[in-house]
Amino acid sequence: MKLSVIGLGLMGGSMALSLKSVYKDWQIIGYDHSQSHKEEALRLNLVDKVAETFEEVKNSDIIILAIPVEGIINALQNLSDIDKNVTIIDLGSTKEKIIKNTPPTIRKNLVAAHPMAGTENTGPKAAFDSLYQDKVVVLCDIEDSGKHQRMIAEDIFKKLRMQIVYMNSKEHDLHAAYISHLPHAISFSLANSVLKQEDPKSILALAGGGFKSMSRIAKSSPVMWSDIFKQNRKNLLKTLDTFQNELDYMKDLIENEKWEDLQEWMKKANSLHDIL
Amino acid sequence: MKLSVIGLGLMGGSMALSLKSVYKDWQIIGYDHSQSHKEEALRLNLVDKVAETFEEVKNSDIIILAIPVEGIINALQNLSDIDKNVTIIDLGSTKEKIIKNTPPTIRKNLVAAHPMAGTENTGPKAAFDSLYQDKVVVLCDIEDSGKHQRMIAEDIFKKLRMQIVYMNSKEHDLHAAYISHLPHAISFSLANSVLKQEDPKSILALAGGGFKSMSRIAKSSPVMWSDIFKQNRKNLLKTLDTFQNELDYMKDLIENEKWEDLQEWMKKANSLHDIL
Repeated sequence: MKLSVIGLGLMGGSMALSLKSVYKDWQIIGYDHSQSHKEEALRLNLVDKVAETFEEVKNSDIIILAIPVEGIINALQNLSDIDKNVTIIDLGSTKEKIIKNTPPTIRKNLVAAHPMAGTENTGPKAAFDSLYQDKVVVLCDIEDSGKHQRMIAEDIFKKLRMQIVYMNSKEHDLHAAYISHLPHAISFSLANSVLKQEDPKSILALAGGGFKSMSRIAKSSPVMWSDIFKQNRKNLLKTLDTFQNELDYMKDLIENEKWEDLQEWMKKANSLHDIL
Repeated sequence: MKLSVIGLGLMGGSMALSLKSVYKDWQIIGYDHSQSHKEEALRLNLVDKVAETFEEVKNSDIIILAIPVEGIINALQNLSDIDKNVTIIDLGSTKEKIIKNTPPTIRKNLVAAHPMAGTENTGPKAAFDSLYQDKVVVLCDIEDSGKHQRMIAEDIFKKLRMQIVYMNSKEHDLHAAYISHLPHAISFSLANSVLKQEDPKSILALAGGGFKSMSRIAKSSPVMWSDIFKQNRKNLLKTLDTFQNELDYMKDLIENEKWEDLQEWMKKANSLHDIL
Protein backbone atom coordinates (compact mmCIF):
# COMPACT_ATOMS: atom_id res chain seq x y z
CA MET A 1 0.00 0.00 0.00
CA LYS A 2 1.25 3.47 -0.88
CA LEU A 3 0.12 6.27 1.42
CA SER A 4 0.93 9.94 0.94
CA VAL A 5 0.68 12.62 3.58
CA ILE A 6 0.28 16.15 2.24
CA GLY A 7 1.55 18.64 4.82
CA LEU A 8 4.41 17.57 7.09
CA GLY A 9 3.75 19.76 10.13
CA LEU A 10 2.51 18.70 13.55
CA MET A 11 -0.61 16.89 12.28
CA GLY A 12 0.77 15.33 9.08
CA GLY A 13 4.19 14.58 10.52
CA SER A 14 2.69 12.86 13.55
CA MET A 15 0.28 10.94 11.31
CA ALA A 16 3.11 9.71 9.05
CA LEU A 17 5.22 8.73 12.04
CA SER A 18 2.41 6.77 13.72
CA LEU A 19 1.37 5.06 10.48
CA LYS A 20 4.94 3.93 9.82
CA SER A 21 5.05 2.02 13.08
CA VAL A 22 1.57 0.51 12.64
CA TYR A 23 1.68 -0.46 8.95
CA LYS A 24 5.25 -1.61 8.63
CA ASP A 25 4.90 -2.84 5.03
CA TRP A 26 3.27 0.33 3.67
CA GLN A 27 5.27 2.95 1.84
CA ILE A 28 4.73 6.32 3.53
CA ILE A 29 5.42 9.27 1.25
CA GLY A 30 5.44 12.89 2.34
CA TYR A 31 4.75 16.09 0.45
CA ASP A 32 4.94 19.71 1.58
CA HIS A 33 5.17 22.95 -0.41
CA SER A 34 8.08 23.93 1.82
CA GLN A 35 11.39 22.42 0.74
CA SER A 36 12.84 22.74 4.25
CA HIS A 37 9.85 20.89 5.74
CA LYS A 38 10.44 18.05 3.31
CA GLU A 39 14.13 17.84 4.19
CA GLU A 40 13.36 18.02 7.90
CA ALA A 41 10.70 15.29 7.64
CA LEU A 42 13.22 13.01 5.92
CA ARG A 43 15.94 13.77 8.44
CA LEU A 44 13.53 13.11 11.33
CA ASN A 45 12.44 9.87 9.66
CA LEU A 46 8.80 10.88 9.67
CA VAL A 47 8.33 9.46 6.14
CA ASP A 48 10.03 6.86 3.93
CA LYS A 49 10.51 9.33 1.08
CA VAL A 50 9.28 12.70 -0.12
CA ALA A 51 7.55 13.48 -3.40
CA GLU A 52 9.00 16.26 -5.50
CA THR A 53 5.68 17.40 -6.97
CA PHE A 54 2.02 17.24 -5.96
CA GLU A 55 1.37 15.24 -9.17
CA GLU A 56 3.49 12.39 -7.81
CA VAL A 57 1.23 11.80 -4.82
CA LYS A 58 -1.84 11.24 -7.01
CA ASN A 59 -0.42 7.82 -7.72
CA SER A 60 -1.15 6.64 -4.11
CA ASP A 61 -3.73 4.31 -2.58
CA ILE A 62 -4.37 6.67 0.29
CA ILE A 63 -3.86 10.44 0.44
CA ILE A 64 -4.03 12.28 3.75
CA LEU A 65 -4.54 16.05 3.65
CA ALA A 66 -2.94 17.61 6.72
CA ILE A 67 -2.75 21.23 5.61
CA PRO A 68 -4.69 24.41 6.58
CA VAL A 69 -8.39 24.17 5.69
CA GLU A 70 -8.29 26.60 2.76
CA GLY A 71 -5.43 24.56 1.34
CA ILE A 72 -7.51 21.39 1.67
CA ILE A 73 -10.17 22.88 -0.60
CA ASN A 74 -7.54 23.79 -3.21
CA ALA A 75 -5.94 20.35 -3.00
CA LEU A 76 -9.31 18.67 -3.53
CA GLN A 77 -9.78 20.58 -6.80
CA ASN A 78 -6.40 19.26 -7.96
CA LEU A 79 -7.45 15.72 -7.06
CA SER A 80 -10.73 15.83 -9.00
CA ASP A 81 -9.48 13.28 -11.57
CA ILE A 82 -8.25 10.73 -9.04
CA ASP A 83 -8.94 7.00 -9.49
CA LYS A 84 -12.18 5.86 -7.83
CA ASN A 85 -10.36 3.42 -5.54
CA VAL A 86 -8.17 6.03 -3.93
CA THR A 87 -9.01 7.05 -0.35
CA ILE A 88 -8.59 10.72 0.53
CA ILE A 89 -8.76 11.63 4.23
CA ASP A 90 -8.72 15.27 5.19
CA LEU A 91 -7.84 16.25 8.78
CA GLY A 92 -9.29 19.78 8.71
CA SER A 93 -10.83 21.43 11.78
CA THR A 94 -13.94 22.51 9.85
CA LYS A 95 -16.00 20.13 7.78
CA GLU A 96 -19.08 21.67 6.16
CA LYS A 97 -17.27 24.00 3.77
CA ILE A 98 -14.70 21.37 2.83
CA ILE A 99 -17.39 18.82 1.98
CA LYS A 100 -19.45 21.40 0.11
CA ASN A 101 -16.40 22.30 -2.00
CA THR A 102 -15.40 18.73 -2.80
CA PRO A 103 -15.74 18.03 -6.55
CA PRO A 104 -18.75 15.67 -6.93
CA THR A 105 -16.57 13.28 -8.98
CA ILE A 106 -14.48 12.49 -5.90
CA ARG A 107 -17.02 12.85 -3.11
CA LYS A 108 -16.97 9.08 -2.52
CA ASN A 109 -13.17 9.15 -2.36
CA LEU A 110 -13.22 11.55 0.58
CA VAL A 111 -13.51 10.71 4.25
CA ALA A 112 -13.91 13.98 6.13
CA ALA A 113 -12.17 13.56 9.49
CA HIS A 114 -11.36 15.83 12.41
CA PRO A 115 -8.94 14.36 14.93
CA MET A 116 -9.41 16.22 18.24
CA ALA A 117 -5.69 16.33 18.85
CA GLY A 118 -2.99 18.93 18.56
CA THR A 119 -0.50 21.10 20.38
CA GLU A 120 0.53 24.73 19.99
CA ASN A 121 3.72 23.66 18.19
CA THR A 122 4.21 23.68 14.44
CA GLY A 123 6.43 22.16 11.77
CA PRO A 124 7.93 18.68 11.30
CA LYS A 125 9.96 18.89 14.51
CA ALA A 126 6.71 19.27 16.49
CA ALA A 127 5.57 15.82 15.31
CA PHE A 128 5.44 12.90 17.77
CA ASP A 129 4.03 9.43 17.38
CA SER A 130 1.52 9.42 20.26
CA LEU A 131 -0.33 12.60 19.22
CA TYR A 132 -3.43 10.70 18.10
CA GLN A 133 -3.41 7.91 20.64
CA ASP A 134 -6.54 7.74 22.86
CA LYS A 135 -7.98 10.87 21.23
CA VAL A 136 -11.36 11.32 19.56
CA VAL A 137 -11.68 11.55 15.78
CA VAL A 138 -14.92 12.82 14.28
CA LEU A 139 -15.96 11.38 10.90
CA CYS A 140 -18.51 13.61 9.18
CA ASP A 141 -21.30 12.76 6.73
CA ILE A 142 -19.76 9.29 6.48
CA GLU A 143 -22.77 7.96 4.52
CA ASP A 144 -21.55 10.01 1.53
CA SER A 145 -18.12 8.36 1.52
CA GLY A 146 -17.49 5.16 -0.44
CA LYS A 147 -17.77 1.86 1.43
CA HIS A 148 -14.14 1.00 0.61
CA GLN A 149 -12.91 4.44 1.70
CA ARG A 150 -14.85 4.27 4.94
CA MET A 151 -13.34 0.88 5.74
CA ILE A 152 -9.80 2.10 5.04
CA ALA A 153 -10.22 5.24 7.18
CA GLU A 154 -11.83 3.40 10.08
CA ASP A 155 -9.06 0.83 10.05
CA ILE A 156 -6.41 3.56 10.15
CA PHE A 157 -7.98 5.43 13.05
CA LYS A 158 -8.61 2.24 15.01
CA LYS A 159 -5.02 1.13 14.53
CA LEU A 160 -3.94 4.54 15.84
CA ARG A 161 -6.08 3.70 18.91
CA MET A 162 -8.46 6.58 18.35
CA GLN A 163 -12.10 6.73 19.42
CA ILE A 164 -14.33 7.26 16.37
CA VAL A 165 -17.38 9.53 16.67
CA TYR A 166 -19.84 10.01 13.76
CA MET A 167 -21.56 13.33 13.23
CA ASN A 168 -23.07 15.38 10.45
CA SER A 169 -20.82 18.21 9.31
CA LYS A 170 -23.19 20.99 10.38
CA GLU A 171 -23.38 19.73 13.94
CA HIS A 172 -19.63 19.07 13.96
CA ASP A 173 -18.80 22.63 12.97
CA LEU A 174 -20.88 24.12 15.81
CA HIS A 175 -19.49 21.65 18.35
CA ALA A 176 -15.94 22.28 17.12
CA ALA A 177 -16.50 26.02 17.44
CA TYR A 178 -17.34 25.59 21.14
CA ILE A 179 -14.71 23.00 21.98
CA SER A 180 -11.80 24.24 19.92
CA HIS A 181 -12.21 27.43 17.87
CA LEU A 182 -13.70 29.59 20.65
CA PRO A 183 -11.00 28.50 23.15
CA HIS A 184 -8.35 29.50 20.61
CA ALA A 185 -10.03 32.87 20.00
CA ILE A 186 -10.10 33.46 23.77
CA SER A 187 -6.50 32.43 24.27
CA PHE A 188 -5.28 34.78 21.51
CA SER A 189 -7.32 37.59 23.13
CA LEU A 190 -5.94 36.92 26.60
CA ALA A 191 -2.36 36.91 25.30
CA ASN A 192 -2.87 40.19 23.48
CA SER A 193 -4.55 41.76 26.54
CA VAL A 194 -1.37 41.25 28.53
CA LEU A 195 1.07 41.98 25.70
CA LYS A 196 -0.41 45.42 25.11
CA GLN A 197 0.21 46.50 28.71
CA GLU A 198 3.00 48.96 29.45
CA ASP A 199 5.35 46.37 30.93
CA PRO A 200 4.20 42.88 29.88
CA LYS A 201 7.47 41.30 30.97
CA SER A 202 7.03 42.15 34.63
CA ILE A 203 3.43 40.86 34.49
CA LEU A 204 4.48 37.66 32.74
CA ALA A 205 7.27 37.13 35.26
CA LEU A 206 4.48 36.19 37.70
CA ALA A 207 2.87 33.61 35.42
CA GLY A 208 1.91 30.41 37.20
CA GLY A 209 0.20 27.30 35.91
CA GLY A 210 -3.17 29.03 35.37
CA PHE A 211 -1.93 31.65 32.95
CA LYS A 212 0.33 29.18 31.21
CA SER A 213 -2.60 26.84 30.59
CA MET A 214 -4.81 29.66 29.39
CA SER A 215 -2.26 31.15 27.00
CA ARG A 216 -0.61 27.98 25.65
CA ILE A 217 -2.74 27.75 22.51
CA ALA A 218 -2.22 31.47 21.78
CA LYS A 219 1.09 30.27 20.35
CA SER A 220 -0.75 28.38 17.57
CA SER A 221 -0.22 29.07 13.87
CA PRO A 222 -1.90 32.29 12.58
CA VAL A 223 -2.21 30.93 9.02
CA MET A 224 -3.92 27.76 10.16
CA TRP A 225 -6.22 29.50 12.63
CA SER A 226 -7.27 32.47 10.49
CA ASP A 227 -8.23 29.87 7.86
CA ILE A 228 -10.32 27.97 10.40
CA PHE A 229 -11.97 31.18 11.65
CA LYS A 230 -12.73 32.06 8.02
CA GLN A 231 -14.34 28.72 7.25
CA ASN A 232 -16.28 28.47 10.48
CA ARG A 233 -17.05 32.19 10.73
CA LYS A 234 -20.76 32.00 11.49
CA ASN A 235 -20.50 29.32 14.16
CA LEU A 236 -17.53 31.01 15.77
CA LEU A 237 -19.39 34.34 15.93
CA LYS A 238 -22.33 32.52 17.52
CA THR A 239 -20.16 30.95 20.22
CA LEU A 240 -18.43 34.30 20.79
CA ASP A 241 -21.84 35.84 21.49
CA THR A 242 -22.60 33.13 24.04
CA PHE A 243 -19.22 33.63 25.68
CA GLN A 244 -19.56 37.41 25.77
CA ASN A 245 -22.96 37.04 27.42
CA GLU A 246 -21.41 34.89 30.15
CA LEU A 247 -18.63 37.45 30.62
CA ASP A 248 -21.17 40.29 30.81
CA TYR A 249 -23.28 38.36 33.32
CA MET A 250 -20.24 37.73 35.52
CA LYS A 251 -19.05 41.32 35.18
CA ASP A 252 -22.46 42.55 36.24
CA LEU A 253 -22.34 40.36 39.37
CA ILE A 254 -18.90 41.72 40.23
CA GLU A 255 -19.85 45.34 39.54
CA ASN A 256 -22.94 45.02 41.69
CA GLU A 257 -21.13 42.99 44.35
CA LYS A 258 -23.49 40.05 44.17
CA TRP A 259 -21.01 37.63 45.68
CA GLU A 260 -23.43 34.82 46.47
CA ASP A 261 -24.77 34.78 42.92
CA LEU A 262 -21.18 34.79 41.70
CA GLN A 263 -20.42 31.74 43.82
CA GLU A 264 -23.46 29.96 42.40
CA TRP A 265 -22.31 30.77 38.87
CA MET A 266 -18.81 29.47 39.66
CA LYS A 267 -20.30 26.29 41.13
CA LYS A 268 -22.11 25.72 37.85
CA ALA A 269 -18.76 25.99 36.03
CA ASN A 270 -17.29 23.49 38.52
CA SER A 271 -19.81 20.90 37.33
CA LEU A 272 -17.68 20.51 34.21
CA HIS A 273 -15.70 18.25 36.53
CA ASP A 274 -18.51 15.68 36.49
CA ILE A 275 -18.50 15.40 32.70
CA LEU A 276 -14.92 16.03 31.63
CA MET B 1 10.82 26.25 66.12
CA LYS B 2 7.05 25.87 66.16
CA LEU B 3 5.24 26.66 62.93
CA SER B 4 1.48 26.62 62.46
CA VAL B 5 -0.31 26.46 59.15
CA ILE B 6 -3.88 27.79 59.19
CA GLY B 7 -5.87 26.19 56.39
CA LEU B 8 -4.99 22.65 55.33
CA GLY B 9 -6.15 22.69 51.71
CA LEU B 10 -4.00 22.65 48.58
CA MET B 11 -1.88 25.70 49.53
CA GLY B 12 -1.53 25.14 53.28
CA GLY B 13 -1.26 21.37 53.05
CA SER B 14 1.45 21.58 50.41
CA MET B 15 3.27 24.24 52.45
CA ALA B 16 3.20 22.07 55.61
CA LEU B 17 4.37 19.01 53.69
CA SER B 18 7.29 20.85 52.03
CA LEU B 19 8.34 22.55 55.26
CA LYS B 20 8.39 19.22 57.11
CA SER B 21 10.97 17.85 54.71
CA VAL B 22 13.09 21.02 54.72
CA TYR B 23 13.07 21.89 58.44
CA LYS B 24 13.24 18.43 59.97
CA ASP B 25 13.58 19.68 63.56
CA TRP B 26 10.65 22.10 63.44
CA GLN B 27 7.26 21.20 64.82
CA ILE B 28 4.63 21.70 62.11
CA ILE B 29 1.13 22.21 63.48
CA GLY B 30 -2.01 22.43 61.39
CA TYR B 31 -5.32 24.14 61.97
CA ASP B 32 -8.49 24.18 59.89
CA HIS B 33 -12.06 25.06 60.79
CA SER B 34 -13.13 21.81 59.17
CA GLN B 35 -12.74 18.78 61.45
CA SER B 36 -12.52 16.42 58.47
CA HIS B 37 -9.70 18.49 56.93
CA LYS B 38 -7.78 18.22 60.19
CA GLU B 39 -8.23 14.46 60.35
CA GLU B 40 -7.30 14.07 56.69
CA ALA B 41 -4.18 16.23 57.10
CA LEU B 42 -3.04 14.03 60.00
CA ARG B 43 -3.79 10.84 58.11
CA LEU B 44 -1.87 12.12 55.06
CA ASN B 45 1.02 13.14 57.31
CA LEU B 46 0.91 16.74 56.09
CA VAL B 47 1.49 18.01 59.67
CA ASP B 48 2.98 16.68 62.90
CA LYS B 49 -0.15 17.50 64.89
CA VAL B 50 -3.33 19.54 64.67
CA ALA B 51 -4.46 22.29 67.03
CA GLU B 52 -7.96 21.98 68.48
CA THR B 53 -8.61 25.73 68.63
CA PHE B 54 -7.34 28.84 66.85
CA GLU B 55 -6.09 30.12 70.25
CA GLU B 56 -3.58 27.29 70.41
CA VAL B 57 -1.76 28.39 67.27
CA LYS B 58 -1.04 31.84 68.69
CA ASN B 59 1.67 30.20 70.72
CA SER B 60 3.83 29.61 67.59
CA ASP B 61 7.01 31.20 66.26
CA ILE B 62 5.64 31.28 62.74
CA ILE B 63 2.01 31.34 61.57
CA ILE B 64 1.14 30.78 57.93
CA LEU B 65 -2.30 31.87 56.74
CA ALA B 66 -3.39 29.68 53.84
CA ILE B 67 -7.11 30.40 53.81
CA PRO B 68 -9.40 32.43 51.49
CA VAL B 69 -8.52 36.13 51.46
CA GLU B 70 -11.55 37.31 53.44
CA GLY B 71 -10.66 34.72 56.09
CA ILE B 72 -7.11 36.10 56.23
CA ILE B 73 -8.44 39.52 57.19
CA ASN B 74 -10.56 37.98 59.96
CA ALA B 75 -7.66 35.89 61.23
CA LEU B 76 -5.41 38.96 61.38
CA GLN B 77 -7.90 40.68 63.69
CA ASN B 78 -7.74 37.67 66.00
CA LEU B 79 -3.97 37.83 65.98
CA SER B 80 -3.75 41.52 66.92
CA ASP B 81 -2.28 40.74 70.38
CA ILE B 82 0.43 38.40 69.12
CA ASP B 83 3.98 38.60 70.49
CA LYS B 84 6.24 40.97 68.51
CA ASN B 85 8.66 38.17 67.60
CA VAL B 86 6.08 36.03 65.85
CA THR B 87 6.21 35.90 62.05
CA ILE B 88 2.88 35.80 60.23
CA ILE B 89 2.99 34.98 56.52
CA ASP B 90 -0.22 35.22 54.52
CA LEU B 91 -0.45 33.45 51.15
CA GLY B 92 -3.45 35.39 49.80
CA SER B 93 -3.86 36.15 46.09
CA THR B 94 -4.63 39.83 46.76
CA LYS B 95 -2.42 42.03 48.88
CA GLU B 96 -3.54 45.66 49.13
CA LYS B 97 -6.74 45.04 51.07
CA ILE B 98 -5.12 42.50 53.38
CA ILE B 99 -2.30 44.88 54.27
CA LYS B 100 -4.70 47.80 54.70
CA ASN B 101 -6.78 45.72 57.11
CA THR B 102 -3.87 44.46 59.19
CA PRO B 103 -4.04 45.81 62.77
CA PRO B 104 -1.19 48.36 63.08
CA THR B 105 0.03 46.58 66.23
CA ILE B 106 1.03 43.56 64.15
CA ARG B 107 1.99 45.17 60.84
CA LYS B 108 5.66 44.33 61.46
CA ASN B 109 4.73 40.73 62.23
CA LEU B 110 3.21 40.27 58.79
CA VAL B 111 4.98 39.29 55.59
CA ALA B 112 2.46 39.61 52.76
CA ALA B 113 3.28 36.89 50.24
CA HIS B 114 1.68 35.59 47.07
CA PRO B 115 3.11 32.32 45.79
CA MET B 116 2.30 32.04 42.07
CA ALA B 117 1.46 28.37 42.40
CA GLY B 118 -1.70 26.33 42.54
CA THR B 119 -3.86 23.77 40.82
CA GLU B 120 -7.60 23.47 40.33
CA ASN B 121 -7.81 20.86 43.11
CA THR B 122 -8.85 21.55 46.67
CA GLY B 123 -8.60 20.06 50.16
CA PRO B 124 -5.80 18.24 52.02
CA LYS B 125 -5.68 15.38 49.50
CA ALA B 126 -4.79 17.91 46.75
CA ALA B 127 -1.57 18.79 48.61
CA PHE B 128 1.80 17.72 47.18
CA ASP B 129 5.31 18.62 48.25
CA SER B 130 6.62 20.11 45.00
CA LEU B 131 3.80 22.64 44.52
CA TYR B 132 6.04 25.60 45.37
CA GLN B 133 9.30 24.38 43.87
CA ASP B 134 10.73 26.62 41.12
CA LYS B 135 7.71 28.95 41.31
CA VAL B 136 7.69 32.70 41.87
CA VAL B 137 6.60 34.20 45.19
CA VAL B 138 5.80 37.90 45.38
CA LEU B 139 6.57 39.68 48.66
CA CYS B 140 4.64 42.95 48.95
CA ASP B 141 5.51 46.18 50.77
CA ILE B 142 8.33 44.26 52.44
CA GLU B 143 9.81 47.48 53.92
CA ASP B 144 6.87 47.56 56.34
CA SER B 145 7.59 44.08 57.68
CA GLY B 146 9.98 43.61 60.61
CA LYS B 147 13.61 42.75 59.83
CA HIS B 148 13.36 39.47 61.73
CA GLN B 149 10.10 38.53 59.99
CA ARG B 150 11.52 39.34 56.58
CA MET B 151 14.55 37.15 57.26
CA ILE B 152 12.39 34.23 58.41
CA ALA B 153 10.08 34.47 55.38
CA GLU B 154 12.92 34.81 52.87
CA ASP B 155 14.66 31.81 54.37
CA ILE B 156 11.49 29.72 54.10
CA PHE B 157 10.82 30.61 50.47
CA LYS B 158 14.45 30.10 49.48
CA LYS B 159 14.52 26.70 51.15
CA LEU B 160 11.38 25.81 49.18
CA ARG B 161 13.44 26.76 46.08
CA MET B 162 11.15 29.61 45.14
CA GLN B 163 12.14 32.72 43.20
CA ILE B 164 11.41 35.83 45.30
CA VAL B 165 10.06 38.97 43.57
CA TYR B 166 9.48 42.23 45.47
CA MET B 167 6.63 44.53 44.54
CA ASN B 168 4.36 47.11 46.09
CA SER B 169 0.90 45.79 46.86
CA LYS B 170 -0.89 48.13 44.43
CA GLU B 171 1.21 47.01 41.48
CA HIS B 172 0.96 43.39 42.61
CA ASP B 173 -2.82 43.47 42.64
CA LEU B 174 -3.04 44.78 39.07
CA HIS B 175 -0.41 42.32 37.83
CA ALA B 176 -2.13 39.45 39.64
CA ALA B 177 -5.45 40.47 38.06
CA TYR B 178 -3.94 40.06 34.58
CA ILE B 179 -1.91 36.93 35.26
CA SER B 180 -4.27 35.01 37.51
CA HIS B 181 -7.68 36.52 38.31
CA LEU B 182 -8.68 37.40 34.72
CA PRO B 183 -7.66 33.93 33.43
CA HIS B 184 -9.86 32.36 36.12
CA ALA B 185 -12.78 34.66 35.24
CA ILE B 186 -12.37 33.67 31.58
CA SER B 187 -12.14 29.97 32.31
CA PHE B 188 -15.32 30.01 34.44
CA SER B 189 -17.08 31.89 31.60
CA LEU B 190 -15.90 29.42 28.95
CA ALA B 191 -17.05 26.45 31.03
CA ASN B 192 -20.48 28.00 31.58
CA SER B 193 -20.79 28.88 27.87
CA VAL B 194 -20.56 25.20 26.98
CA LEU B 195 -22.52 23.89 29.97
CA LYS B 196 -25.55 26.00 29.10
CA GLN B 197 -25.83 24.49 25.60
CA GLU B 198 -28.60 22.01 24.85
CA ASP B 199 -26.35 18.95 24.88
CA PRO B 200 -23.07 19.81 26.62
CA LYS B 201 -22.08 16.16 26.91
CA SER B 202 -21.88 15.62 23.18
CA ILE B 203 -19.85 18.82 22.80
CA LEU B 204 -17.52 17.87 25.64
CA ALA B 205 -17.06 14.39 24.17
CA LEU B 206 -14.92 16.13 21.53
CA ALA B 207 -12.68 17.93 24.03
CA GLY B 208 -9.00 17.81 23.11
CA GLY B 209 -6.00 19.33 24.82
CA GLY B 210 -6.96 22.92 23.96
CA PHE B 211 -10.33 22.91 25.70
CA LYS B 212 -8.97 20.92 28.62
CA SER B 213 -6.22 23.50 29.18
CA MET B 214 -8.66 26.39 28.87
CA SER B 215 -11.26 24.95 31.24
CA ARG B 216 -9.02 23.32 33.86
CA ILE B 217 -9.07 26.25 36.30
CA ALA B 218 -12.87 26.55 35.95
CA LYS B 219 -12.86 23.70 38.45
CA SER B 220 -11.35 25.98 41.13
CA SER B 221 -13.03 26.72 44.46
CA PRO B 222 -15.98 29.17 44.25
CA VAL B 223 -15.50 30.36 47.86
CA MET B 224 -11.84 31.12 47.36
CA TRP B 225 -12.34 32.81 43.98
CA SER B 226 -15.40 34.90 44.80
CA ASP B 227 -13.39 36.20 47.76
CA ILE B 228 -10.48 37.11 45.48
CA PHE B 229 -12.80 38.77 42.95
CA LYS B 230 -14.34 40.74 45.84
CA GLN B 231 -11.01 41.96 47.17
CA ASN B 232 -9.52 42.75 43.78
CA ARG B 233 -12.78 43.97 42.22
CA LYS B 234 -11.54 47.21 40.65
CA ASN B 235 -8.42 45.74 39.09
CA LEU B 236 -10.31 42.71 37.84
CA LEU B 237 -12.95 44.93 36.20
CA LYS B 238 -10.17 46.93 34.57
CA THR B 239 -8.53 43.82 33.11
CA LEU B 240 -11.94 42.53 32.00
CA ASP B 241 -12.41 45.77 30.04
CA THR B 242 -9.06 45.28 28.33
CA PHE B 243 -9.92 41.68 27.51
CA GLN B 244 -13.38 42.57 26.20
CA ASN B 245 -11.82 45.20 23.94
CA GLU B 246 -9.48 42.58 22.47
CA LEU B 247 -12.42 40.21 21.95
CA ASP B 248 -14.44 42.98 20.28
CA TYR B 249 -11.52 43.90 18.03
CA MET B 250 -11.08 40.27 16.96
CA LYS B 251 -14.83 39.82 16.47
CA ASP B 252 -14.93 42.88 14.27
CA LEU B 253 -12.12 41.49 12.10
CA ILE B 254 -14.00 38.20 11.75
CA GLU B 255 -17.34 39.86 11.05
CA ASN B 256 -15.77 42.07 8.38
CA GLU B 257 -13.63 39.25 7.01
CA LYS B 258 -10.34 41.08 7.48
CA TRP B 259 -8.29 37.89 7.46
CA GLU B 260 -4.88 39.50 6.97
CA ASP B 261 -5.40 41.83 9.91
CA LEU B 262 -6.59 38.83 11.93
CA GLN B 263 -3.36 36.99 11.10
CA GLU B 264 -1.32 40.01 12.18
CA TRP B 265 -3.23 40.13 15.47
CA MET B 266 -2.64 36.39 16.01
CA LYS B 267 1.06 36.86 15.26
CA LYS B 268 1.20 39.47 18.01
CA ALA B 269 -0.29 36.91 20.42
CA ASN B 270 2.35 34.39 19.26
CA SER B 271 5.08 36.73 20.51
CA LEU B 272 4.16 35.60 24.02
CA HIS B 273 6.40 32.69 23.08
CA ASP B 274 9.45 34.95 23.21
CA ILE B 275 8.78 36.05 26.77
CA LEU B 276 7.07 33.09 28.45
